[in-house]
Amino acid sequence: MGDGPRVRENRVMRLDLNADVGESFGAWTLGDDALVLDVVTSANVACGFHAGDSVTMRATCRYAAERDVVVGAQVAYRDLAGFGRRFMDVPRDELAADVIYQLGALMAMAGAEGTRVAYVKPHGALYNAVVHHEEQARAVVDAVLAVDASLPVVGLPGSLLLELATAAGLRAVTEAFADRAYTPEGRLVPRTEGGAVLHDADEVAARVVRLARDGVVTAVDGSLVEIRADSVCIHGDTPGAVAMARAVRTALEAAGVEIRPFTG
Amino acid sequence: MGDGPRVRENRVMRLDLNADVGESFGAWTLGDDALVLDVVTSANVACGFHAGDSVTMRATCRYAAERDVVVGAQVAYRDLAGFGRRFMDVPRDELAADVIYQLGALMAMAGAEGTRVAYVKPHGALYNAVVHHEEQARAVVDAVLAVDASLPVVGLPGSLLLELATAAGLRAVTEAFADRAYTPEGRLVPRTEGGAVLHDADEVAARVVRLARDGVVTAVDGSLVEIRADSVCIHGDTPGAVAMARAVRTALEAAGVEIRPFTG
Amino acid sequence: MGDGPRVRENRVMRLDLNADVGESFGAWTLGDDALVLDVVTSANVACGFHAGDSVTMRATCRYAAERDVVVGAQVAYRDLAGFGRRFMDVPRDELAADVIYQLGALMAMAGAEGTRVAYVKPHGALYNAVVHHEEQARAVVDAVLAVDASLPVVGLPGSLLLELATAAGLRAVTEAFADRAYTPEGRLVPRTEGGAVLHDADEVAARVVRLARDGVVTAVDGSLVEIRADSVCIHGDTPGAVAMARAVRTALEAAGVEIRPFTG
Amino acid sequence: MGDGPRVRENRVMRLDLNADVGESFGAWTLGDDALVLDVVTSANVACGFHAGDSVTMRATCRYAAERDVVVGAQVAYRDLAGFGRRFMDVPRDELAADVIYQLGALMAMAGAEGTRVAYVKPHGALYNAVVHHEEQARAVVDAVLAVDASLPVVGLPGSLLLELATAAGLRAVTEAFADRAYTPEGRLVPRTEGGAVLHDADEVAARVVRLARDGVVTAVDGSLVEIRADSVCIHGDTPGAVAMARAVRTALEAAGVEIRPFTG
Repeated sequence: MGDGPRVRENRVMRLDLNADVGESFGAWTLGDDALVLDVVTSANVACGFHAGDSVTMRATCRYAAERDVVVGAQVAYRDLAGFGRRFMDVPRDELAADVIYQLGALMAMAGAEGTRVAYVKPHGALYNAVVHHEEQARAVVDAVLAVDASLPVVGLPGSLLLELATAAGLRAVTEAFADRAYTPEGRLVPRTEGGAVLHDADEVAARVVRLARDGVVTAVDGSLVEIRADSVCIHGDTPGAVAMARAVRTALEAAGVEIRPFTG
Repeated sequence: MGDGPRVRENRVMRLDLNADVGESFGAWTLGDDALVLDVVTSANVACGFHAGDSVTMRATCRYAAERDVVVGAQVAYRDLAGFGRRFMDVPRDELAADVIYQLGALMAMAGAEGTRVAYVKPHGALYNAVVHHEEQARAVVDAVLAVDASLPVVGLPGSLLLELATAAGLRAVTEAFADRAYTPEGRLVPRTEGGAVLHDADEVAARVVRLARDGVVTAVDGSLVEIRADSVCIHGDTPGAVAMARAVRTALEAAGVEIRPFTG
Repeated sequence: MGDGPRVRENRVMRLDLNADVGESFGAWTLGDDALVLDVVTSANVACGFHAGDSVTMRATCRYAAERDVVVGAQVAYRDLAGFGRRFMDVPRDELAADVIYQLGALMAMAGAEGTRVAYVKPHGALYNAVVHHEEQARAVVDAVLAVDASLPVVGLPGSLLLELATAAGLRAVTEAFADRAYTPEGRLVPRTEGGAVLHDADEVAARVVRLARDGVVTAVDGSLVEIRADSVCIHGDTPGAVAMARAVRTALEAAGVEIRPFTG
Repeated sequence: MGDGPRVRENRVMRLDLNADVGESFGAWTLGDDALVLDVVTSANVACGFHAGDSVTMRATCRYAAERDVVVGAQVAYRDLAGFGRRFMDVPRDELAADVIYQLGALMAMAGAEGTRVAYVKPHGALYNAVVHHEEQARAVVDAVLAVDASLPVVGLPGSLLLELATAAGLRAVTEAFADRAYTPEGRLVPRTEGGAVLHDADEVAARVVRLARDGVVTAVDGSLVEIRADSVCIHGDTPGAVAMARAVRTALEAAGVEIRPFTG
């Protein structure tokens, strides 16, 4: 690391782990939320537009409350058939209203289960859009400001969303992805490229420990790249994903990293 | 009235007028909410399940706030294609969660426009179901208790919904229908029968004045029937309906009835 | 059987096996259709109203076509969140139009994959409603008549649907349920009662063989009850269900029952 | 016009008039389809994804059949809340399946009313996307080929959709817009620019007559521009639009232009 400032010394080793949950819908189950919520500290709960019927939302809030997992609103395009994974060119006022709607619905559900919504994180294609799409990034910020300006917004480091959120006085929370490869510039390797997603649980766990300890990940070219991350996103939608999530948590604990919500 | 106790003397003459608003959806417009909100004191705002996309919900809350009209949540079955007018056999827990969802969505929208949700009123087939359907009436009560036990519930006098709401400690608000005929027993004449709906604005206005002043309406057989009504529901979904609503308001004001929200 | 006419001798031993397939939706998978379609001869394909996005419908038709499994339209209420399992009081003309819509959508999808829709079977709460609900039973018959009067309608023996279908000149196809207990009167034991659903694969297989061979099943009181069944419905929505389905097929083949579509 | 070949002599003066119809949904009415269908020769019937519940679809097919108006499938993105006006990045296979689904649904509905679907025209944002978006243009062509390769596809002259349709052996039908301004290059002036939409019924009627007679329209800079148009799209979603549509038809008839379906 010689000449680089990349490895931070004396870093307070603490990390938030977040995962998408509550993504079942009606008769359809996706993932095992109870298992995932045993691992993470922050739960991105689907709000009904891409997934999450109201019964599922309520049960997910209850599971989260029982485990002291922080609830966040995973807001999305109105696209059940596409699971919110298809970009939609929604104008700013429509998207802002859609985000307010979802946020409010989850707030009531969380309240009904004795907890509260503590942050907002866009889902799927909206997550990707707000990295660069100004109108939609502004819409998300508009919505959070309109509902509760104390709610942090979670997104990709360097995203327009976080830049605009910060400029608007919102707390911007950065996240890294446990199982994704990074370019030397600190960007995610697109899923369309080989090696974009890492599948070895031990390797992923070791990477997250390194990230928590030193603030760096090894990029695809072998170089070390600094990643700012208040939280690390893990997956729980398959049995393999849950096992990997557990491995990450175990490795972090073994390394002395305190796993606690970024809101804490 | 001689031998009857039906005409109340010295009654404080005040009345709330409520109407369904915010029932447009996307490209489709229903009614002229701005006009209706100039007439009523309480606005039953659709929450997205039978009508009311999020942009419409927000605009409706803004119109209401601008006019100091009280906002209520018009909760419904999840049935856009049927406008919530078709009975659905939704189990108690599912219906309760659906009501919480809609209520929360509107609460956020109202808050974004500087107002708040002040009551809950079921819509359409759900409104009719909770007159007698215990499981669904309980579901609505469950939802209100779970979200905010200070919210009144609006319904038909004598309905199971209001009975259960009262038993649960909620405020039960009764309403009459300005343009509907009543049986001598004080029940609405079913729409399937001739004469169920009144179309003459002057007659309707005179009936509402009588109701406000004396607490009675003339039933289909000519007898007077006592009707408890904290609020009177009027319609605004056609130009004729808006004209009738205005006639009702004008007649009430001319008769010295104070028109103000039941929440006031 | 001595005194009873119940056991049919010299019966041509053939039977159709049908199952619900194509009930995934978007990101959500339900059952393993490829496995189920290896077992059955008739596939009740969901048409998008309770389940089945268009990609799933197309893939299901392709799997069916590849295996020479006959495609039927599994028509339902418009209720994705409830999976079509909640009764909806849909008027006759609306329900008929909804059935035509679903039927046509699947016909195009089947045609695109080189096969065709060969029958109609209501799903879920609609299946149960048309046993006795005249308006809705007529709606289904109306729809089939309007689209293709050569399409058979599948339902419960003794149901109003099949009675009206027959009266209208449609072919009425009766079905039995492999894993359901029967009353001595030949009706299904309601799911709300204990023992309504059988879980032992060998027992279920033996019952279906008996049904195919003798036209009878053993009722809950131990008596034999005659069941007319052109087809037997099996499930495939869980790994256990697929295993049971395979056991039924194997047992039927071992007993010399020809397993072929009722349309054949 | 001097040296230009733009004004075609001895042209067979005939023209198809098409309009979007069947765009009501449930309780919401849009336009007056009966009036519009008295004017046009081809009806682009909404298929349920952006508008058009099944009852509306059926009624629209009946109105069209009664007037010998040709029925076309107005296929769209699955976006009721946005009326199909928001671009959605739907992958090719999903979009093709969605188009097949809608096409089939309308085919059954048309058949139920004694008519048939005779062409396909994308709606809204999809219409605009397939001018240049190869994946989505191919999806529409894929769908038509899969269902019925004899169905013409209607689109903008020079669009990728029509180019790919022609290459695939489908009939490509070009259309012009009666009330839209054109650039000197023959493209529509974007709606975001002033003067993009013409509002004077007489002017619009005169332009359509000129188009039918000479194959040209006057562009925004005053120059004449040649427009290939097998059909002219008119609107009927407002009373003013219906009046304009009637003016166009009357002017065409007065000019001796035969108004008949392009399929005729």
